[in-house]
Amino acid sequence: MNVRIAKNSGFCFGVKRAIKIALEASKKNHEIVTLGSIIHNPQMVAKLESEGIIKVDNFDQIKKRPTIIRSHGVKKEILDELIKNDIEIINATCPYVSKTQDYAKSLSEEGYYLIILGDRDHPEVKALRSYVDKEVLIVANADELEDKQFKKIGIISQTTRRVEDLQELVKKLVPKCHEMRVINTICNATTVRQNSTLNLAKVSDIMIVIGGKNSSNTKMLAKICESFVKTYHIEIACEINKKWFINKQNIGLTAGASTPDWVIVEVYNHILECVGNINKVENIEDIPGFRED
Amino acid sequence: MNVRIAKNSGFCFGVKRAIKIALEASKKNHEIVTLGSIIHNPQMVAKLESEGIIKVDNFDQIKKRPTIIRSHGVKKEILDELIKNDIEIINATCPYVSKTQDYAKSLSEEGYYLIILGDRDHPEVKALRSYVDKEVLIVANADELEDKQFKKIGIISQTTRRVEDLQELVKKLVPKCHEMRVINTICNATTVRQNSTLNLAKVSDIMIVIGGKNSSNTKMLAKICESFVKTYHIEIACEINKKWFINKQNIGLTAGASTPDWVIVEVYNHILECVGNINKVENIEDIPGFRED
Repeated sequence: MNVRIAKNSGFCFGVKRAIKIALEASKKNHEIVTLGSIIHNPQMVAKLESEGIIKVDNFDQIKKRPTIIRSHGVKKEILDELIKNDIEIINATCPYVSKTQDYAKSLSEEGYYLIILGDRDHPEVKALRSYVDKEVLIVANADELEDKQFKKIGIISQTTRRVEDLQELVKKLVPKCHEMRVINTICNATTVRQNSTLNLAKVSDIMIVIGGKNSSNTKMLAKICESFVKTYHIEIACEINKKWFINKQNIGLTAGASTPDWVIVEVYNHILECVGNINKVENIEDIPGFRED
Repeated sequence: MNVRIAKNSGFCFGVKRAIKIALEASKKNHEIVTLGSIIHNPQMVAKLESEGIIKVDNFDQIKKRPTIIRSHGVKKEILDELIKNDIEIINATCPYVSKTQDYAKSLSEEGYYLIILGDRDHPEVKALRSYVDKEVLIVANADELEDKQFKKIGIISQTTRRVEDLQELVKKLVPKCHEMRVINTICNATTVRQNSTLNLAKVSDIMIVIGGKNSSNTKMLAKICESFVKTYHIEIACEINKKWFINKQNIGLTAGASTPDWVIVEVYNHILECVGNINKVENIEDIPGFRED
């Protein structure tokens, strides 16, 4: 039996950076808060709490403590409120997300009607939308488009969407407008991870996708795998059921951009245990597939 | 037996306008020239010659006579040469084509690498390309794209292409660039005519496409019909072969944007004759289908 992990699984640049910023800030302060989860991974959030980095859910709970802006960014009005109340801001917004906010603003200011490909309930998209004063259309895919004509449209995407969905959206919009300006704001690491996952799913008998149940990019990985093979989306090792592996030869693993390495290693070791293999690994780099071409 | 014509067949706004401009100019001048065919229809060009509107093929043949710029436009360097030589210019460029030239220029000036969907040997595209000083990519369809990455691309189209081809091109370019600006320069009349032709082809046993063998938009109509039904592209009535109609119940007609009404009427009457029908029509409006919904 083979247990392999998709290349490029786990933490992306933006997540690594956000956690580093948070940990450095926690050394200088007795207690700091993050407004919402700093990343969409409950295990990592719990670990950070033990370092004095407390997650709060609304503005009133901040109580003047230094506040980390999480990787997905935050609504403009909340940022304004923090400034107004003279609260120290530690900005851990992913630079790619910040850039997308800048594009949203400038496209709208230049007279483009903004269309965002994304999940309207996701914090990244909520924040993104807040940078535009005018009407904005948010669609999860091309099928959600109504039969409406536009003059000038600007199109951007939540950083973790599939490039194929952006392609379909843009294709469908061509006859619906006179002019369109598309800025591909999908993070390259997202595309690379999705492709590696797809390739592994194609040659696996079962896929285990590891990451927060609230993680948009992890859910997208699960969706991609599901079209090829039986797929389970789990957060931690103990969710695994031994029966999943009966008569399975090739077990594939992948993990979202916000899934810590130690969680992935625990899952891998737990699978080995389930299938009666006594080997263990210490580091994610030792899981077959992680660094292979 | 039914012989029907696709709605919106024949002269478009730009062609009607060009001929009107030419005829008005010919009243004021003993002899005027057009540099290249004013429109891509040999029958119309021959008719205009009888009105003293002479087609010349190159600059030297102009011999200082007032010169009509044809509906497809002309290369910038030729326009400059006419001005330099103080030759009277009668501009019959289709306004939609002129607009496309403006877009080509401004996109390039704003730093977009220009990609033109079109036929690189067509006069409209040659003229269009001449308005850009930098490198330009001209592709007939998405399949011609090479595996290359771009930073900022501007996309425009020859006015007579299919919107579906522009959609495919744009879709394929999304992952190949960071930013794209698409201006849909396909003439609406072209799209409407293509759709009417497509709808008629679907319910016909044979399609006769009437128009210049050198007419890009007519060739496109023939291409569209061919995917549904046996199709003949003809210029004039005498090209018709009686045998085409044996055992055919539904005969469909369509005509390009540069096909004069009288040519269409001749073809229609000739078909009726071939199938033993003694009726005749005087005007294109009397051909079944022309004004129907």
